[in-house]
Amino acid sequence: MTQVEVKKTQESLQDRLAQVVELLQRQRVVEDLTHRQEGPHHDRVENLVHRQNLVELQRKLDDLHSADVAYILEALPLEERLTVWQLVKADRDGDILLEVSDSVRETLIADMDDHELLAAAKEMDADELADLAPELPRDVVHELMEALDGQQRERVRSALSYDEEQVGALMDFEMVTIREDVSLEVVLRYLRRLKELPGHTDKLFVVDYDGVLKGVLPIKRLLVNDPEKQVAEVMASDPVSFHPDEDAYDAAQAFERYDLISAPVVDKNGKLIGRLTIDEMVDLIREESESEVLNMAGLREEEDIFASVWKSLRNRWAWLAINLITAFVASRVIGLFEGSIEKLVALAALMPIVAGIGGNSGNQTITMIVRAMALDQVSTGNTSRLMRKELAVSLINGVIWGGVIGAVAYLLYGSWSLGVVMTAAMTLNLLLAALMGVLIPMTLARMGRDPAMGASVMITAVTDSGGFFIFLGLATIFLL
Amino acid sequence: MTQVEVKKTQESLQDRLAQVVELLQRQRVVEDLTHRQEGPHHDRVENLVHRQNLVELQRKLDDLHSADVAYILEALPLEERLTVWQLVKADRDGDILLEVSDSVRETLIADMDDHELLAAAKEMDADELADLAPELPRDVVHELMEALDGQQRERVRSALSYDEEQVGALMDFEMVTIREDVSLEVVLRYLRRLKELPGHTDKLFVVDYDGVLKGVLPIKRLLVNDPEKQVAEVMASDPVSFHPDEDAYDAAQAFERYDLISAPVVDKNGKLIGRLTIDEMVDLIREESESEVLNMAGLREEEDIFASVWKSLRNRWAWLAINLITAFVASRVIGLFEGSIEKLVALAALMPIVAGIGGNSGNQTITMIVRAMALDQVSTGNTSRLMRKELAVSLINGVIWGGVIGAVAYLLYGSWSLGVVMTAAMTLNLLLAALMGVLIPMTLARMGRDPAMGASVMITAVTDSGGFFIFLGLATIFLL
Repeated sequence: MTQVEVKKTQESLQDRLAQVVELLQRQRVVEDLTHRQEGPHHDRVENLVHRQNLVELQRKLDDLHSADVAYILEALPLEERLTVWQLVKADRDGDILLEVSDSVRETLIADMDDHELLAAAKEMDADELADLAPELPRDVVHELMEALDGQQRERVRSALSYDEEQVGALMDFEMVTIREDVSLEVVLRYLRRLKELPGHTDKLFVVDYDGVLKGVLPIKRLLVNDPEKQVAEVMASDPVSFHPDEDAYDAAQAFERYDLISAPVVDKNGKLIGRLTIDEMVDLIREESESEVLNMAGLREEEDIFASVWKSLRNRWAWLAINLITAFVASRVIGLFEGSIEKLVALAALMPIVAGIGGNSGNQTITMIVRAMALDQVSTGNTSRLMRKELAVSLINGVIWGGVIGAVAYLLYGSWSLGVVMTAAMTLNLLLAALMGVLIPMTLARMGRDPAMGASVMITAVTDSGGFFIFLGLATIFLL
Repeated sequence: MTQVEVKKTQESLQDRLAQVVELLQRQRVVEDLTHRQEGPHHDRVENLVHRQNLVELQRKLDDLHSADVAYILEALPLEERLTVWQLVKADRDGDILLEVSDSVRETLIADMDDHELLAAAKEMDADELADLAPELPRDVVHELMEALDGQQRERVRSALSYDEEQVGALMDFEMVTIREDVSLEVVLRYLRRLKELPGHTDKLFVVDYDGVLKGVLPIKRLLVNDPEKQVAEVMASDPVSFHPDEDAYDAAQAFERYDLISAPVVDKNGKLIGRLTIDEMVDLIREESESEVLNMAGLREEEDIFASVWKSLRNRWAWLAINLITAFVASRVIGLFEGSIEKLVALAALMPIVAGIGGNSGNQTITMIVRAMALDQVSTGNTSRLMRKELAVSLINGVIWGGVIGAVAYLLYGSWSLGVVMTAAMTLNLLLAALMGVLIPMTLARMGRDPAMGASVMITAVTDSGGFFIFLGLATIFLL
């Protein structure tokens, strides 16, 4: 990429998308016309317009940074997406494939034949290949691996051997290594002999003859220190480093906490095997926050907004089915009290208030706790204190808002005892919501699951069934 | 910070927190004992233990990176937090204040007198001062401004003049600037004369005599090019740059998209006035995702998990009050059909299923849309297509799951017409959920509001009232 391209696109990315969409729409209109009007003369005219459109579109796309093309591909429905993909895939397919989201990548790869895939992947580094490999057809991967030299093949294999959530799957291999017993002058000369430095090179890695990491030489220090000095004098000798089997999200948090740009990855013998860079970590931080939002709403995974209806259904069914069961349970709880409702039909109208406000309050609590857990702020040492606080907040909310709604119930139905039952039920249900809002994510975490998983569905299930039971139960005891 | 400290803390941050908590608990036990046992002999022993504990705690804290101390402060309840704060604030209060979250910072500042605040702030750069200023007492800010030189004061004022969400509020002023008509050799010598380069310096800013940005010289190019070359030959002449009044979140997305580490900020005449760095952008990306989660659950802002009950109440009341009103509306909808429920009490038991599943499905849709909008993937061009897709998903879900629950209703109550009404109501409510799940965030965005704002509360309100109305309405027409 040249800097020029970036400048232009950044100024008007939304506009560019709009332009592409417009060109695509014009294209479609032309195609429709071509199909409808059969005369040979018309045909030629339409064909001309058609081609002109494509040329203009192609020119627009060629001006764009790969990341921007990726953005446009993600924002287009499948048919238009593939039209654009046909236009760009010749030169830059590799770059773009690496930029798009997983679900969009799948649709693009499905549109490429083996030959195109091989050409795209041949330009890639080992870590990029490893990212892509799981989604490529088997024989393409096989052929790609054959074409690699020994070291590269080893690196792809090693990257593939780690779980997606581990440092080893995210590291790259573009380290610039130097020895500690040379002068900075020598290092500067060595760098000049390289045609180019890898992206995000803010430090050089100092290794011994066995490849064991001895320290890092920040470029900043290389630049401000006397060139006569030895690397060993200037380097940082105990840098933040990571192991390939560490949790990648922990690494991302360390990057954020210590403002890192790159960091070495070493094996258990201290040998340098790769490096992590901030760009991968930023992606990870975003993905983590996103999956938290999605998980809370009971969505299994990232969903391309133009995913097919069938894929969307699969993504949403799991929790919807669970919700069906919990709703059925809540319904049966009400079923227990049908006799009471028959005698006092006001109960049917008031019970959703108790359940609904409990659900809202529980969602607030659970959102707070899930967030605090994601930031590692919740430990066994402070659970009981957190619980007390949430219960206190709920108690106050219950008494005050429950009191308000109790008063309204009295005004509507003229029964003060109904009002009191309403207030009591609201308070108890809010306490239940607070209790479960803390316990659900903590229990999930203790079971080794994601604390956000379906949090919203679960808390609502508890506050619905609980709310109906508490309110109808109290009403049955005290009012009938 | 030295690299050594970081290494150690990163290995066992959770452990360290546990250690600090333990020391604090021991401390509290000792204090309790001291209060209870009054003898002079006991007193001395306890005092000794007390002091030993504090010394050990102090030593532990001194070993920690400021970012780690900030993490510990955030994870501690107020009382313990202030004990720790007393121990660390002497030397590193400024650094730590800048690292902690807003809500925790407030509690720490409240614990400092003007003298301490002045001492802490004196070490800060202009951009850091501007970050802190809104939370400091007026006379402290006044005194600080007096102590600054003209340029610094101007910078603080300028940073304060921008909204929190604008680039101008996030930029710093630590730019290394060079001229374009010198050789790289001269640049290298110039850098060596600086004792230190600012953090995140991956490029130098090339300016003319009026301070107008001519280009940037990436350090990478400085290192690999022949020192005889001129800056003008090597620099990138049209770099990504930002304006101080641009939206900061857009800048963060550009950083992410183009893998930037730092970027110049220029005024409308092209004059270099500051720079943005990736660390601020990472914080912003995280904050944005977090506020999305919080907003959806109807929480107004970030809440320190140990915030006082009163602060928590204020944070949660706004949407809880709105929820109270929507729940009341839903209740009145049911009230309209009390006659029908009296005749067929099964309706009371079945209606929460229709409402609940509609709410869950609507939450899934709205979460998807809010996310896609945050990623700028939704434009007016694709709204109708998105809508059609969501409606299709809902229609299928409604027919299938509605059919299941309709069958269950038939089995439970022996009325096939009740089953059919149930299925129809589920389908219609899911369609309503899809429609509103798309329209609510889009309408909010068109009104210039955050599309995530209370999304969960609003969609639930619609699916509750709507669900009750549809189900009870259909039942009244067809069953009674």
